[in-house]
Formats: sequence, C-alpha cells, structure tokens
Amino acid sequence: MAKSMFALAGALALMIPLASSPLAAEPVQAGQLPASIKAQLDAQYDQVIADLIRITETPAPPFKEERRAALFAQMLRDAGLTDVTIDEIGNVLALRPGQSDGPVFVVSAHLDTVFDEDTPIKVQREGERLMAPGIGDDSLGLASILAWVRIMEANRTVTRQPILFVGTVGEEGAGDLRGVRHLFTKGTYKGRIGGFLSVDNADAGRVVHGAVGSRRYRLGFKGPGGHSYGAFGIVNPMVAMAETVRGLYAVKVPAEPKTTYAASVVSGGTSVNSIPDLVQLEVDMRSGSPAALAELEQAMLAAAEAAVAGENAARSVQAGAISLDPVLIGDRPAGGTPIDHALVHDALAASQAAGFTARLDESSTDANIPMSLGIPALTIGTGAGGGRTHSLDEYLETGRERFVAGLSVGLAVILAQTQPGAP
Amino acid sequence: MAKSMFALAGALALMIPLASSPLAAEPVQAGQLPASIKAQLDAQYDQVIADLIRITETPAPPFKEERRAALFAQMLRDAGLTDVTIDEIGNVLALRPGQSDGPVFVVSAHLDTVFDEDTPIKVQREGERLMAPGIGDDSLGLASILAWVRIMEANRTVTRQPILFVGTVGEEGAGDLRGVRHLFTKGTYKGRIGGFLSVDNADAGRVVHGAVGSRRYRLGFKGPGGHSYGAFGIVNPMVAMAETVRGLYAVKVPAEPKTTYAASVVSGGTSVNSIPDLVQLEVDMRSGSPAALAELEQAMLAAAEAAVAGENAARSVQAGAISLDPVLIGDRPAGGTPIDHALVHDALAASQAAGFTARLDESSTDANIPMSLGIPALTIGTGAGGGRTHSLDEYLETGRERFVAGLSVGLAVILAQTQPGAP
Repeated sequence: MAKSMFALAGALALMIPLASSPLAAEPVQAGQLPASIKAQLDAQYDQVIADLIRITETPAPPFKEERRAALFAQMLRDAGLTDVTIDEIGNVLALRPGQSDGPVFVVSAHLDTVFDEDTPIKVQREGERLMAPGIGDDSLGLASILAWVRIMEANRTVTRQPILFVGTVGEEGAGDLRGVRHLFTKGTYKGRIGGFLSVDNADAGRVVHGAVGSRRYRLGFKGPGGHSYGAFGIVNPMVAMAETVRGLYAVKVPAEPKTTYAASVVSGGTSVNSIPDLVQLEVDMRSGSPAALAELEQAMLAAAEAAVAGENAARSVQAGAISLDPVLIGDRPAGGTPIDHALVHDALAASQAAGFTARLDESSTDANIPMSLGIPALTIGTGAGGGRTHSLDEYLETGRERFVAGLSVGLAVILAQTQPGAP
Repeated sequence: MAKSMFALAGALALMIPLASSPLAAEPVQAGQLPASIKAQLDAQYDQVIADLIRITETPAPPFKEERRAALFAQMLRDAGLTDVTIDEIGNVLALRPGQSDGPVFVVSAHLDTVFDEDTPIKVQREGERLMAPGIGDDSLGLASILAWVRIMEANRTVTRQPILFVGTVGEEGAGDLRGVRHLFTKGTYKGRIGGFLSVDNADAGRVVHGAVGSRRYRLGFKGPGGHSYGAFGIVNPMVAMAETVRGLYAVKVPAEPKTTYAASVVSGGTSVNSIPDLVQLEVDMRSGSPAALAELEQAMLAAAEAAVAGENAARSVQAGAISLDPVLIGDRPAGGTPIDHALVHDALAASQAAGFTARLDESSTDANIPMSLGIPALTIGTGAGGGRTHSLDEYLETGRERFVAGLSVGLAVILAQTQPGAP
C-alpha cells in the first residue's frame, strides 16, 4: 500500500481509540491533526479565501446552480482530481479512489443559495469579516473541500475506501434536497455509499447528528364561487380551509421527539364582494421521528377531508361542491445517526481538539436523506463563526488562526473515517 | 307663474292621477311625455351619442374623477345652467332654480368607473352597439342628464322646487358612495334635499326602490410570528382567523329581508416554514334591513374577538399575543322607498309608458344614502339595454327608437315630481 509523504500515523494513533470510545463529557485531546498538516492548512489560508470569494461571486440561485457547478468541477480538477463529472440533476461528483472499490465515503457541500438571480453579490471586507449573501452558506463548505483535496493530493493520502467529493444542488427551501436525494436514490452511486459528511455552516462546534424530517403541503380548496349577495348559501372554500386549520390545531403531537406543525401561508379570493373559488393553505409538519411525522400527516389530511365534507354538507352544492387538492411541496425525511456511532465521536473529538465547544444538534440538511436510509451521516461546520445566514448581510469571521482551526475539523473527521487502520 | 313654451300640462294631467294611484298591475298609459317633447328627445339623439362618446373617453378611474368632473361641469354650462360648481369631495353640482327655494330635488349620475387609469378607453361601434369600458355605467346617465337639461332650458320649464343636477364621485366599489354621502351628510345641500333620482344603468325597465346595505371589514390578526419548528407552541393568527370564519358561518340570518355574509378574501404568511405574524380576512355583510345588518355585524365582530381570545388561551403568548385589528372598508346603509310612494309610481308608469317592462328591484347604488336617511329616492335606468358591465367589453344598445324611448323615462319622472300641480 502506498504511504503518504507525510506521516499521519501519529494523528491516527490518537484518533482511533477516541473514535471507538464512549461519548466523552470531558474535552478530548484526540482528533488532533499532526502539526505538519496543520501547517499545510495554514499555508492554504490565502488560497481558501481567494476560492471562497470566487465561489461566492459565482451566483447559484435556487434551481440555477449550473454556473457554480461548472466552476466547482473545474476547481476540483485544478486541485488534482481527475474523475470529475456533473450528474443528471446537476450535482458535481469527484471520485478519489481508495484501496478498495467501496463502499464510498461522501464529503459534500451544497452549491445552491437562497438568493434569486437578481441579487447582486460582491464580497465586502470589514476588518476580519467577509460579507456577501451565501458566503458561509455554503461557499465556505465548497472552499473547504478544495483545501482538503489539495492537502490529500499533496500528501498522496491513501484511504481505505474511495471518497466521493460532491457539490449538491437543491439543498435550500424549495430545492427540497433534490440533489442529495438523487445521489442516494437514483444516481450512479445509489446503494454504494457507506458514509456521508455534509459540510454546511460556519460553526465548527456544531455536529448535526439528527435529521428533522418535514412534510409540507399546499392544500387547494376549490369551489364554484359566486356573488357574495346573489349566491349566498352556496359552499365556501374559505370555511373548508378554516375547519382544516381548526382540525390541525386540535392534533396532539409528542414533545419527544419534538414534532411540530404550522398553518403558515394562506391566500384566496379576489374581491370582497365575491365568494372565492379557490383558497390555498400551506402547512409545515416536522419531526425527528418518521412514525410521528407520518401520523401527523395522516391526521392533517383527515382533518382537511373532514372539513371539505362538512362544508359540502352544511351549504348548497347546487352550483358545485368543494374539492380538496393536496399537493406535497416539501418532503425531507427524518432520521439520525446514533450518538455512539464512530462518526459522531470523530466529529466531536475533532471539533474539541481544534478548540471549539463541540455540541450535538438536529436540523434539516442534506444529511437527512442518508440518515433516513440508515446510512451513517453527519452535517458539520467548517468555520470560526459568522451570521445573518439567508440575509443580504450574511458574514463570515476569517481571522486566520480560528479560521484555519475551523478548517481542520472536517479534514480530521475524513481522515479518521477513511485512513487504513481506522475502524 | 311662468309657463313653459311647450305645454306639458297634457302629460301632467295624465301622470298626476297615476302618481297617486295604487301600484298598477296592468300596463299604464300614463307617464307618457307629450309628442312635442318626444320629438325634441329624438332630435337630441346625435348630440347624446356624441356626448356619450366624449364622456366615456374622458377617464374617471376610482378616486381620480377630476378630468371627467371638469368636462361634465362644462357640458352642464353649455347646456344652459349657470350655477355649476365642484364641491369639496369632487361632485359636480348644477342648480336649476325652482319657484321656491326648496326642498331640492336631486337628479344624479355617477362620474366614476371601475377601471384603473391604465385602461385604454376608445369607443367602438359594432352595428347599433357602442362598446367601451364604462359606456353604460355610467356615462349614459351623465349624457342623459345633459339632454334633459337642454330640453328643460329650451322649454323654459318651470319647476316647483329647485333641481340639483349632480355628477357624483365614488359610487363604485371602494369609492363606498363617498360622493353622495358627502352630498347628504356634509355638503352645502345637507338637510335641504327632498327627493333623489339616480340615473344608473342601461335598463329603463328597472326601478331600484330598495337599498341593500353592506358593511365590509378587513380583519387583521397580528401575532409574534416565528419559526415553524423552533417556535412551535406559540399563538398563530391563522387559527384566530380560522375560528372567526367558523364563528361567522355559524351565524343565523333572516331570509327576509335577505341578509348575507361572505368570508371573501384571505391572505397571510410569507414562507411555509414560518408561523405568520399577520393574517388578513375580508368579510362582506349585506341586508335590506339596517337592524339585521347591525346584528350580523355585531355577531361577526364578537366571533372574531372570541377567536382571538381563544387562541391566546390555547397557546403560548410568551413571545406576544394575537391582537385583532378590524378595519371598516365598506359601509353602504340599507333602506328603501315604499312602493306606494309617488316617486315609485311615477317611475313605473313612465317606464311602462315608454314601452319597457317596468319592474321593481333592490341593489346597492347612490340611492342607498338618501334611502337610509328616509328621503324618497330611486335609481332608474335610462337606456335600451346593454351588458358586460364592469368588463372591458361593456356595450350599449343604441338603436335610435328604443334608445330615445329609454331617455324619455327619466325626464318623465323628473317632470312628474317637480312640475307645478304635481303632488
């Protein structure tokens, strides 16, 4: 087996025991990268900042990630990888071979932002802060991956399994995880992925091991409509919508795992003197438990059906009845990686070793998909802090020492998970 | 007392008995204008059509009636009236003195249309049809008034009471009858009006003697808002809105006089993953009975208050409570002119005498205001038919004989109501 130019054995010797130890309550000293690798990361600082700015200023609006995907693919090639492609849905896939053919370990960041194509994006500097829409979410993840690839290439790092570096489309909002969903359920690597690490957010202390699932609906209530005075007495879709809200808000949900619902957006009607012919209601439902989420969804749909039936029974349907048109507009599966899994241990250890206050969290990220499939997966941060995510004044702290420490966490996790001798 | 050049006594002799007779089920021969006046109306035909086109092509969007008001004022002067002014709210007022100083008899048509200022308006001819937005509603009313004034001036017609010819602003929709409301409740003629005839619609058979009143609200439900998952458990204004709809639709209203309600327009929320901070609901309520309308309004407001209180009790108000902001966006008082009133008799008789199938109706027009104040008032049509009112392809039938017959009805009513010797 080829050996890397720089000995990582020391680091691994420290990391391996930790990776299989129980979750430590005390700060751990393991997960520490050797000084030589830390020095290389430090030497990457200027390049990472330059990459970050270049990626950020290449727009990737929802459903329009092509330009950034092409850039990221080329940057992966420039970093030394040769097997770089863009898949059917727009994800960038770069395979770095391992000692064996699989299963593949995925290291991923998302290409898309929440900003539309008319948003002007120019990175501004204010002291040690860089500011621009999307700079931390998730340009930083993409730039971090490039730095890690360059270091692995420079060190000729050998891994047991292949590593697939990915830039996903559609992580945000209406994108509904379509990139990562395609990767796991339809693409070339379907059934061949053994682990997944998503790099997404500027907080290297945050280890997202729980996937909050969500099911989102747009419920259309359609009826005949008519003049408010002349047609009084006919069914009104407004009433069916109202009874649906009432039915939903009577549902009891478990506090643990946290399970929630919201009637969030409503619209309908065109003039005050008309009975509307269409009212639309958007509903968000979430849970860390797939079973609780499914139960809630059934209760919500049953409430809507009962509301429609009730309105059709309460008023005249001579001009037409109310009908229900439920459209699923969001589907993020719930799931999680157990806290005693080595991947969780590695991430917590690496984060603490780099000087961050490591902590577990749950959220809705690209890792939802593998977690829901039972594939070990995490989403970790890679920065030294930032804020105002999803706003036009999003910013990132880029003070050199902490920034490089943030960068080190992901690399330490990757090496712990893939190096020969790791569990 | 001055006599008109042309003897109208014959017509009046026929009309006076009818005006005080019980409502005739048989077609009546009374209300007939003398042949000489009918000939004068026929001679006005080309001028009326020219006036109609000129008025129609002078835009009068909601709340922007100034241009048409200035035109109509000048046309009234050109027709021979000298006391022509525009009042504080934008109504055109033209006083034609009578034998006494009062009370004043008002003959009115409305200046405003439902079309915004970007609507292109050019009258098109298709055989005997003229087509343009607003041509029948209510350019025809304004043009009719001009013809009647010219004939009264030419005949030096003497009337017992002064006649105030009016072009009102704000009859349509959100205008909420503000012109006629000002006339009766604030302007110079407040307390001095003894009768009111609104000329509005192209159907000279329709006599609107009942005013359907309406009260319209935009209910704002405000709350703290928050993340659908993170803030789950806080109050949601969507629920308060829904319970308001439910409460409203549980209200029992009388079938006679017809009393109605509608939850008609709803909006709220910005994203599916947020608890909204504002939901707005528009409600329309109508009745021919002021008491029934007031009772319904109180029930609706009580339902909204109960809904808000219920939601504040059902969920956490730690981040803030739901508040209710009810805004009255429409207020048209109910009322009516008794069918045995001379004004009603005169209108039915004149309509039937002119060859139309006279019939009583109720609606919401400028006459709502005087009717609600107990002042005898009607809204009558002045045309020979038309259609597609409030649409871009509105049209008017202008075949000469029927059109002139339609014109005759209003003049016959005015003369019956104001000539010396009339009751």
